[in-house]
Amino acid sequence: MTHHPDEPADSPGDGGLVRVRLSVAYDGGGFSGWAAQPGRRTVQGELEEGLARVLRVPVTLTVAGRTDAGVHASGQVAHADLAAGAWEALGSRRGRAGSEPGPDLVRRLAGVLPADVRVRAVRPAPAGFDARFSAVWRRYAYRVVDDPAAADPLRRHDTLTWPRRLDPDALAAASAGLLGERDFAAFCKRRDGATTIRALQRLDWARDAAGVLTATVRADAFCHSMVRSLVGALLAVGEGRRPPEWPASLLAGAARSGAVTVAPAHGLTLVEVGYPPDAELAARAETTRRRRELPQPSNDSSAPTG
Amino acid sequence: MTHHPDEPADSPGDGGLVRVRLSVAYDGGGFSGWAAQPGRRTVQGELEEGLARVLRVPVTLTVAGRTDAGVHASGQVAHADLAAGAWEALGSRRGRAGSEPGPDLVRRLAGVLPADVRVRAVRPAPAGFDARFSAVWRRYAYRVVDDPAAADPLRRHDTLTWPRRLDPDALAAASAGLLGERDFAAFCKRRDGATTIRALQRLDWARDAAGVLTATVRADAFCHSMVRSLVGALLAVGEGRRPPEWPASLLAGAARSGAVTVAPAHGLTLVEVGYPPDAELAARAETTRRRRELPQPSNDSSAPTG
Repeated sequence: MTHHPDEPADSPGDGGLVRVRLSVAYDGGGFSGWAAQPGRRTVQGELEEGLARVLRVPVTLTVAGRTDAGVHASGQVAHADLAAGAWEALGSRRGRAGSEPGPDLVRRLAGVLPADVRVRAVRPAPAGFDARFSAVWRRYAYRVVDDPAAADPLRRHDTLTWPRRLDPDALAAASAGLLGERDFAAFCKRRDGATTIRALQRLDWARDAAGVLTATVRADAFCHSMVRSLVGALLAVGEGRRPPEWPASLLAGAARSGAVTVAPAHGLTLVEVGYPPDAELAARAETTRRRRELPQPSNDSSAPTG
Repeated sequence: MTHHPDEPADSPGDGGLVRVRLSVAYDGGGFSGWAAQPGRRTVQGELEEGLARVLRVPVTLTVAGRTDAGVHASGQVAHADLAAGAWEALGSRRGRAGSEPGPDLVRRLAGVLPADVRVRAVRPAPAGFDARFSAVWRRYAYRVVDDPAAADPLRRHDTLTWPRRLDPDALAAASAGLLGERDFAAFCKRRDGATTIRALQRLDWARDAAGVLTATVRADAFCHSMVRSLVGALLAVGEGRRPPEWPASLLAGAARSGAVTVAPAHGLTLVEVGYPPDAELAARAETTRRRRELPQPSNDSSAPTG
């Protein structure tokens, strides 16, 4: 993964760099979201600071899903281009000669990062990998407890408490009506010039043995606040305040619907990011990038948020 | 469950009282343990205050397992003797006539209790039930993560992070050696005149799909800090610092072993309390009470703590 002179200038191997893929988990409760912002505590800010402390060089992260304030992640993915020298020096300091750089970096980060964010794995990325542009889908989970008998105080930080019982059949019917490639403008916080067409691949609900309802939501990408808007609309159906047809009927709207309440952030977790097989990574990244360069409203599918 | 003149004076039905059984869950992190103490925030204190607010009469709780500061519960059991009038008035106020008193009380408590303690169920207790004296066993779980790749920031409040890998085979071998009715003085915080003989019915470890190790510990009762002392000794074995025979070898000691490190409270949760079939409840409570009245060092098996 070190420098190859025949690679293009913006490729991971350029300039003696190693592109690494990081698996990241965090409790979003104490963060103003993923993206670094001056004066705010963010996941990106804490991670870049921790990486810089361990590696003694500045590090910039690119992420698959830029989660909002309060949203959690168990399977966030990011990449960074590290100086090959800094990467290769890992695992060989402090008498650990011969150990792998990735696990060594994970161990060191565990020692410097705050307890609400963990790097679970670091490894050299396959050729052509881009955490943001190579991703083909994002999967989120939204946890709701609608029964006081199922309330677990230990999970209150990642579970929404709903004061009324939710009907699983109504939730299922309403969710099925939203699947497919659609214009989700009614469920998106407006961004000028950004498309709101998304392919919603999965949206279903399951009640676990403890009685907690979890929505699984998967799409190629999400526009801003889309998962929480979908969940908010579905909760209105689940408690019987709206008919099951209602959320899909909003898809006709060209702008965000004022009738939809965005569900609270703390019930939402980014669980997994999907990538194509290694051989297709570069092609996928190229396709995503090219879509953004078309002379039409830019596609922000590469910058999804929950 | 109201007054029956033929019942003895200390029975639940006396004086127009209804004995109710409460199922309780809490995040122990913000509490100075279960037992009410002046000037401290305790689970008992919060619950009794919440019950008094809803019922407008003072309420005193008796609990199955008096957990220490920082210890959690998902399946704590308590009882209270409520004025029959206050109990029967539940479910009939605010236009809810005809609803059950128990679910109505759970709903009302959810509105007044802080988010870190929940009452999951309240129902009239069967005849002879005593949350403390009728209990035949207590089951605890202790969660440990020994692999940075398995760390979940959302579960850091109820999971101990261990910096070194733990060997499941060594944990299993050492745990098996502790089972049975033994004198656990080496693992007990000394209390004058209290027996330290306990029947350890179950002590095993399982690693879940996420990589988290959970110890399941069940005994008729536990002396003070016993579960955490056992776990502390076993962790020393799991990481290879002590041989598997070591924890059992301490059982010969007549006092608490200084070589045992008590594991941190936040990994421990009281999961379940076992009771005999309803028909045997009164007999069991009588047996436990009588054991305490023998003219010998009193048995505190009725006042277990984690």
